[in-house]
Amino acid sequence: MSLTLNCDLGESFGSWKMGMDEAVMPHIHQANIACGFHAGDAIIMRRTLALAKANGVSVGAHPAYPDLQGFGRRSMLCSHDEIVAYVQYQIAAIEGMATNIGVSMDYVKPHGALYNDMMAKPAVRAAVMHAVAEHHSKPALMLQAVPENDLHIEEAEKLGLKLHFEAFADRCYDDDGKLLSRAKPGAVHTREKMIAQVRQLCNEGTVTTVSGHTLPLRANTLCVHGDNDEGIAAIAEIRALVDA
Amino acid sequence: MSLTLNCDLGESFGSWKMGMDEAVMPHIHQANIACGFHAGDAIIMRRTLALAKANGVSVGAHPAYPDLQGFGRRSMLCSHDEIVAYVQYQIAAIEGMATNIGVSMDYVKPHGALYNDMMAKPAVRAAVMHAVAEHHSKPALMLQAVPENDLHIEEAEKLGLKLHFEAFADRCYDDDGKLLSRAKPGAVHTREKMIAQVRQLCNEGTVTTVSGHTLPLRANTLCVHGDNDEGIAAIAEIRALVDA
Amino acid sequence: MSLTLNCDLGESFGSWKMGMDEAVMPHIHQANIACGFHAGDAIIMRRTLALAKANGVSVGAHPAYPDLQGFGRRSMLCSHDEIVAYVQYQIAAIEGMATNIGVSMDYVKPHGALYNDMMAKPAVRAAVMHAVAEHHSKPALMLQAVPENDLHIEEAEKLGLKLHFEAFADRCYDDDGKLLSRAKPGAVHTREKMIAQVRQLCNEGTVTTVSGHTLPLRANTLCVHGDNDEGIAAIAEIRALVDA
Amino acid sequence: MSLTLNCDLGESFGSWKMGMDEAVMPHIHQANIACGFHAGDAIIMRRTLALAKANGVSVGAHPAYPDLQGFGRRSMLCSHDEIVAYVQYQIAAIEGMATNIGVSMDYVKPHGALYNDMMAKPAVRAAVMHAVAEHHSKPALMLQAVPENDLHIEEAEKLGLKLHFEAFADRCYDDDGKLLSRAKPGAVHTREKMIAQVRQLCNEGTVTTVSGHTLPLRANTLCVHGDNDEGIAAIAEIRALVDA
Repeated sequence: MSLTLNCDLGESFGSWKMGMDEAVMPHIHQANIACGFHAGDAIIMRRTLALAKANGVSVGAHPAYPDLQGFGRRSMLCSHDEIVAYVQYQIAAIEGMATNIGVSMDYVKPHGALYNDMMAKPAVRAAVMHAVAEHHSKPALMLQAVPENDLHIEEAEKLGLKLHFEAFADRCYDDDGKLLSRAKPGAVHTREKMIAQVRQLCNEGTVTTVSGHTLPLRANTLCVHGDNDEGIAAIAEIRALVDA
Repeated sequence: MSLTLNCDLGESFGSWKMGMDEAVMPHIHQANIACGFHAGDAIIMRRTLALAKANGVSVGAHPAYPDLQGFGRRSMLCSHDEIVAYVQYQIAAIEGMATNIGVSMDYVKPHGALYNDMMAKPAVRAAVMHAVAEHHSKPALMLQAVPENDLHIEEAEKLGLKLHFEAFADRCYDDDGKLLSRAKPGAVHTREKMIAQVRQLCNEGTVTTVSGHTLPLRANTLCVHGDNDEGIAAIAEIRALVDA
Repeated sequence: MSLTLNCDLGESFGSWKMGMDEAVMPHIHQANIACGFHAGDAIIMRRTLALAKANGVSVGAHPAYPDLQGFGRRSMLCSHDEIVAYVQYQIAAIEGMATNIGVSMDYVKPHGALYNDMMAKPAVRAAVMHAVAEHHSKPALMLQAVPENDLHIEEAEKLGLKLHFEAFADRCYDDDGKLLSRAKPGAVHTREKMIAQVRQLCNEGTVTTVSGHTLPLRANTLCVHGDNDEGIAAIAEIRALVDA
Repeated sequence: MSLTLNCDLGESFGSWKMGMDEAVMPHIHQANIACGFHAGDAIIMRRTLALAKANGVSVGAHPAYPDLQGFGRRSMLCSHDEIVAYVQYQIAAIEGMATNIGVSMDYVKPHGALYNDMMAKPAVRAAVMHAVAEHHSKPALMLQAVPENDLHIEEAEKLGLKLHFEAFADRCYDDDGKLLSRAKPGAVHTREKMIAQVRQLCNEGTVTTVSGHTLPLRANTLCVHGDNDEGIAAIAEIRALVDA
């Protein structure tokens, strides 16, 4: 299985810095760039887009609920129309700014609580899919690789929407194919286990779940994080693995 | 002189309603639509864009300083880079949403304090012009018709930027071609004087200033307001005038 | 049963006006004043506090989730600490401004989704009660009168917290003592039924539910709304009733 | 001359961290705590207040223009009423939260552009003074020590307002007693010059200006910054100096 690496970037805001975008960018294929609702103001967006361009990295919009204070991590009970409008506003904003510097916006990956709600609630997923499918440039939608991939493909095909499926390098999977809750022991892998999980995904298209089962997982991209030097080194190691 | 009518619209926000957009739209040629920084959230923007489309009205972006609480009416000391980024973000957001429903974004008219600063401060005007000129779809920039039109044309031509010049129907002009301060008596015309000013602009390309001088004013669009029934009626009357 | 009238006020924001505060204030006993998170900026708050003072109306804080765009009507999954901090910030802000003009802040009534979540989710109610009980001036907490009043009193007594219970004049009650969903027919009373409900509450301490049952409801205040002339007239009529 | 040390703290926001509050707090006398307009949400404020209490540090409100994106560093053309309302809202919010944990709010130091405007524009200073003087608990106002101290004292006395005057440890003074612009060489002192300036202020009540003149400066507090380990060490050294 061929896997790309994607990472959430451009998550600074105003005078506040977050992430190590310059160090991460050379190692990844796809940058999910914040669009101003949970992080990333217009200044940060321009800078991050230029950085992606300089590194030949594909740009994705990373829209969120309008919640700067909560970094988009708190579920908000939004209506269908609100989700459609919020997603389209954010992807339009970043796409236009990308086009201004000769970069295309290739896909959309919802952020934080909007991502989780999209995976858990059919009505939220329908709104997100509707928003992205209706967007004129026809970007793909990135969501989590789960055993229900086929259902999501079916939903998307009705709208003429292309999907990307992402797996997580550093998170332990539960037996149902969801991520093990962070509240549980072993939820976040050691570096060794992370590398083993990536290798298994690349070679066999499966993950070993928390209870030791082997679960097939069709993914075409891996979500990675790089907030410190150790994280950057891990990304570099994963990149070498998926390139090999 | 041929004059179009432009009006600021889409200035509601969340649960708060402002303006009589449905009543104004049939009478105007160009809708300056708020982009979320001083007014107009994503829901309002979609609705206003659909209304413009239904009425065959040309859409302009109406970007502002990021100041919801002050309705974009307070000057903010922003840097060149901040103004460029804020303007591009807002025009990208509305243009993408417009394109989604098959509508083009034809021009940009800065709002409130950003508009005033653009007219009064060369550095702000340079930033706004830079932002709009760099935008990929090459929209025009709308600014105030003043005796210094030629200077502004010269500045714009260097950037390959097209300009629209707007005059005000209901405001008395000072001898220097600027609007008479609202603090002064006679700053806002009676209906009768407003109609006379529009007629003179159409027929002679001049306005009569506060002290009675005749001042040439090259404008191709008229800014109108419609917040109440009387305002709507005035717009209809002005429309009939410019059509005649 | 003696009933006061309370109303949500100060819900304008910046240039946007909402409500008929001047017309409502003379008829009510308690003003629930927005604190800037869902509505009401600092300018509006000062003005509304002065209006309450001029009318001898008791002031309550009306804190909400931080959601201006959604007017505080969208449930947000906030943590215990977030709710405590948000509520204390808002009630501190309005109380200090009230004290500046010689007015006391007597009680706290959560707004919109925070109110609904407080009634439906014990964890949210615990956070709100904790926030208010810990506040130095010991304001009362206003919540909905329901058959479970005793449970709420018990929860509050442990914290040394005083409660007010409000009933709704214009809403039909379901058999379980909750408000009938607005989605159902008859959810909002006609003027005649509203007056009958208020009279029954005052005289018998009961309401007649949607299916015709008589339900005891211990309330000491009535929530009223006045967004138009008819609403103001209804408030005046209710006031006459509770005074009689 | 006896000098206290004051520092801007609580300037994180949501998920974004700024400053080294835990490391700075033990060395200072006064904490200027952000109130949510330029930085510092309600969660951060509670945490910072508790930290100040644990270290026996006096608490000051640090209000700003409503500009999170610009960190309160951009001048905004606000009216008298807006400044009064914004300042009172912020100092009320932090004072109430401080009182909840048994801490008093002793003084107010405006932040960033509001501070600069207060020093440069009499109308802004009048609004800030009015806001603080009218606040019920009668906090002091901290402003910059300048040759015009007497004028400011006179303005304050009319309002019954107490003033603190702060000098800057690490900034070079211009001949007029203002800070040398950061754009000019030598604007920020080396560690050695900073220590010399503090010593001179303590012992002689003067500073040596950029051109070598000796300028009297009546200050009772020193503004210090600690964003990194070196800054913290400098603060500790300055503290030892003022204690000696």
